[in-house]
Amino acid sequence: MTRSQPRPAERPGTAPGPPVPRAGTGARRGPSEQTRRRVFLAVGALVERLDHRSVTVDAVARASGVGRSTIYRHWPSRQVLVLEAYSWTTNRVTPLPDTGDVVEDLRVYLSELAFCTSFGGAAPTVAGLLVDALEDAEFAVAFRRVLVGERRRAFATILARGQQRGQVRPDLDRDAAVDALYGALHHRLLMSGQPVDGPFVAALVDVVTRGLVARPADDGSAAAARTRERPRSAD
Amino acid sequence: MTRSQPRPAERPGTAPGPPVPRAGTGARRGPSEQTRRRVFLAVGALVERLDHRSVTVDAVARASGVGRSTIYRHWPSRQVLVLEAYSWTTNRVTPLPDTGDVVEDLRVYLSELAFCTSFGGAAPTVAGLLVDALEDAEFAVAFRRVLVGERRRAFATILARGQQRGQVRPDLDRDAAVDALYGALHHRLLMSGQPVDGPFVAALVDVVTRGLVARPADDGSAAAARTRERPRSAD
Repeated sequence: MTRSQPRPAERPGTAPGPPVPRAGTGARRGPSEQTRRRVFLAVGALVERLDHRSVTVDAVARASGVGRSTIYRHWPSRQVLVLEAYSWTTNRVTPLPDTGDVVEDLRVYLSELAFCTSFGGAAPTVAGLLVDALEDAEFAVAFRRVLVGERRRAFATILARGQQRGQVRPDLDRDAAVDALYGALHHRLLMSGQPVDGPFVAALVDVVTRGLVARPADDGSAAAARTRERPRSAD
Repeated sequence: MTRSQPRPAERPGTAPGPPVPRAGTGARRGPSEQTRRRVFLAVGALVERLDHRSVTVDAVARASGVGRSTIYRHWPSRQVLVLEAYSWTTNRVTPLPDTGDVVEDLRVYLSELAFCTSFGGAAPTVAGLLVDALEDAEFAVAFRRVLVGERRRAFATILARGQQRGQVRPDLDRDAAVDALYGALHHRLLMSGQPVDGPFVAALVDVVTRGLVARPADDGSAAAARTRERPRSAD
């Protein structure tokens, strides 16, 4: 959770909020990059050690060396602080891949997300934030915009690039494809409790990229082939 | 939690629990069909009128005419009662389709589920039960077995029938396909807050059955027109 590399806004997963001068401008548009980094790293470390509900603003202030009032000025609540820190950290460890192949990009990105949710306090943090969102309509807006929205944009970017390269069919409903890919991961993590691991990622990418319908090339049976006669060939 | 074996298995979505003699056998293997029906209908009506957390055993006893002690004998907690009633009701309004065409079966079943989660107290009930499951590991087991498990089995049955008919590719990972289909629905309902409606179902079935990868026929200037050329209508 503490891997470091400076990331300018080269990809859609990047949290908003431009760097502002450290002090004295009065613009107050957001914390400085340095403050965000110190605060978010402190939250990440605390989440790793504690339940995310135990990550108080006081504890973050102590761990980061950033004052309580500064934290409250930029993050209206403990929940939003944990949310933004979680999303920031996730973005750092799931750089948007660009291998030139949409199937490979999806596999890499899903593997990173799966890895990201499979260690430390990640799964309970997502679950806890979701619980908060389900019980608080105002926080739900932030939850959907930051955590869900940034990840959805990353998937959509991969798919759009694939369409530009002619690898993804042009009539694809990208939203539905993102629902299927990202939804499957959260379904396992939160609803079914099944493992979110390599075999899962491989199987999911296979289903969503190739589809589940049999095509003539799938077996040699002429009768079977006739029943699923389609204008396009297999893969 | 107190039921033991499958009912006459007319379909996988059907909740287990055989009818037992109304009284005096001492077997205590489960409530009678009549008791289950009265209790579950009462829970359903209360959930429609109130938040699911307000559905107390006392209120259910009053509304159903079934005694508190009988209810507690068969359902260990208010949570399990709401869970089983919700799943029972969902099964009643989402009969497993068997049209002979796997794409149509998926479309019908997803449409029923989507409809089912789009009215009354359904979405908040699913959300509330999930919150309970995320905060209570013991309840999570029941939640996954009853609510998630029964719906997953229904999808898997549709896919298995499709494989028997040669409509679904034999090498499909059915679990991953169910994750994508069912996960997408829950993702919208709980995570993204997007509508769970007819256009969503049509787009989701299209992605998961056909896949997102462009095939040779998708290329070229007339790609978009040719892509839509299919033996079955897409909606």
